[in-house]
Amino acid sequence: MTREIIEETYGRIKAHIHNTPVLSSSYLNQLTGCDIVFKCENFQKMGAFKMRGATNAILNIKTSQRQNGVVTHSSGNFAQAVALAAKNQGIPAYIVMPSNAPSVKKQAVQDYGGQVSLCEPTIEAREANCQLIADKTGATQLHPSNDIDVIMGNSTSAYELLFDYPQLDVILAPVGGGGLLAGTALTAHNFGNDCICIAGEPENVDDAYRSLAAGKIEYNDNINTIADGLRTNLGDVNFPIIQQYVDRIIRVSEAEIIAAMKLIWERMKLVVEASSAVPFAAVLKESETFKGKQIGIIVSGGNVDISSLPF
Amino acid sequence: MTREIIEETYGRIKAHIHNTPVLSSSYLNQLTGCDIVFKCENFQKMGAFKMRGATNAILNIKTSQRQNGVVTHSSGNFAQAVALAAKNQGIPAYIVMPSNAPSVKKQAVQDYGGQVSLCEPTIEAREANCQLIADKTGATQLHPSNDIDVIMGNSTSAYELLFDYPQLDVILAPVGGGGLLAGTALTAHNFGNDCICIAGEPENVDDAYRSLAAGKIEYNDNINTIADGLRTNLGDVNFPIIQQYVDRIIRVSEAEIIAAMKLIWERMKLVVEASSAVPFAAVLKESETFKGKQIGIIVSGGNVDISSLPF
Repeated sequence: MTREIIEETYGRIKAHIHNTPVLSSSYLNQLTGCDIVFKCENFQKMGAFKMRGATNAILNIKTSQRQNGVVTHSSGNFAQAVALAAKNQGIPAYIVMPSNAPSVKKQAVQDYGGQVSLCEPTIEAREANCQLIADKTGATQLHPSNDIDVIMGNSTSAYELLFDYPQLDVILAPVGGGGLLAGTALTAHNFGNDCICIAGEPENVDDAYRSLAAGKIEYNDNINTIADGLRTNLGDVNFPIIQQYVDRIIRVSEAEIIAAMKLIWERMKLVVEASSAVPFAAVLKESETFKGKQIGIIVSGGNVDISSLPF
Repeated sequence: MTREIIEETYGRIKAHIHNTPVLSSSYLNQLTGCDIVFKCENFQKMGAFKMRGATNAILNIKTSQRQNGVVTHSSGNFAQAVALAAKNQGIPAYIVMPSNAPSVKKQAVQDYGGQVSLCEPTIEAREANCQLIADKTGATQLHPSNDIDVIMGNSTSAYELLFDYPQLDVILAPVGGGGLLAGTALTAHNFGNDCICIAGEPENVDDAYRSLAAGKIEYNDNINTIADGLRTNLGDVNFPIIQQYVDRIIRVSEAEIIAAMKLIWERMKLVVEASSAVPFAAVLKESETFKGKQIGIIVSGGNVDISSLPF
């Protein structure tokens, strides 16, 4: 059933997204002793995998309802993804952003045609503002990660990857809100050939690791990590999927994330955001256990401020 | 005749190089009003197109002579290309480098198995040292740009590009020593469909522009440009080819190079060296004349110090 849903999802969104390139580096293979392919979602439209989930969620809204538009709160990639996916469908996108969001991020959303409203930088204010807009406009609310349509859209990155590389032993993805990881795990389980799914997570925001251990959703006391896409928590939709289909979560330090990011930039010539380097950092950290394996890594995105790099 | 030589060359080297990806950006197309494809030699082995020319030059050495190895003087991409191409053929590579070359560049050559000898940082000392090594070892001397085998090897990047995009109106390449430009122009002329070849050159080192105007090889008084791959001069082998087959050379300022480089990094998510941004800077500068055209740009390489970026 899930298999058919993933296939249907891909059929629905494929004309609206890029089948992103897959790249590899003989240097990094030699360094790790693995055979690694990188699925480059940094080359996706608007620069991140989020375009897949946002597109699928919008296309799944009933036609009569769709014209009222969509609303979400986000200061990151999901805001841009919703704005662009809505624009592509010719419907309005209302994006609630915290008043302290960097102006470059507001501008990026507006460049994609999104209508930005600012609010106090608290989760309560963000949700309240979303609700207010939804009530007023009839727009459909979208959640960046805890929504089955978003998860299914995100599952298509690994789907494309396994189509080209069906013999992968492992697919790794980063885990933040859990929407990419849940989708990736579903695809690995349903389309892989004994392919397992492993996540990378920053030690500093290891809520997903602790959630798996505790059997319930855990939260972070602070969000002090360079991997700014991974500061969020799991939700009740994606957590059960992650529990069932994710093999394990490997935690990495900030220094390990930066070192992995630098290798990807220098050796693969790819501009990737810090969150994207987390799964590769996990491979480097546990290279003994990955040795000899065929590995796929979902490079989640490339939206990074190139004027303030950690190296 | 040239047509057959390019085809033969490609047949000779294709197993030893990457057929590099071609990428595009709807944002940059919208910005310029053109339809631009970027041929990503930054993803080539050792990170630059130079691998093509070095490989061809080495494969064209007679077998009996080849075992004595090759020698060149370079502190840049050609040094790494010769080291790696020689290693791939199982022969020694002697690389003469100026004593003031950054240690990271010496290390990169050694990592590829090259035998580095240091000399005074003058062109006379570099050439004398090359000759000394050639006399002692019987190694064949290779020139980075003024060598017909190197030029033919370099021609294969545009050859792959035109194979996938036969309708290009223009192919642009940067011009430094002239080896990439001459090869690209030969391919555009022989395999394009009324495809012209245009070069981008830094204003600060516009020797090639002045050479075309004067009808003889001109030199630079200083080499003060961020595009460190383009500081060299044309030679007697590539200059006649450039005179005959290059439509014109567009000069760009340092600020224009940096702005173009930033756009490629931010919008295309590609790590490219400054020299690679020069042709795109030329398109931005003269976007009126390129409007509506189908354009191919040879992205020459991605070997850049990511710890000291100009933005």
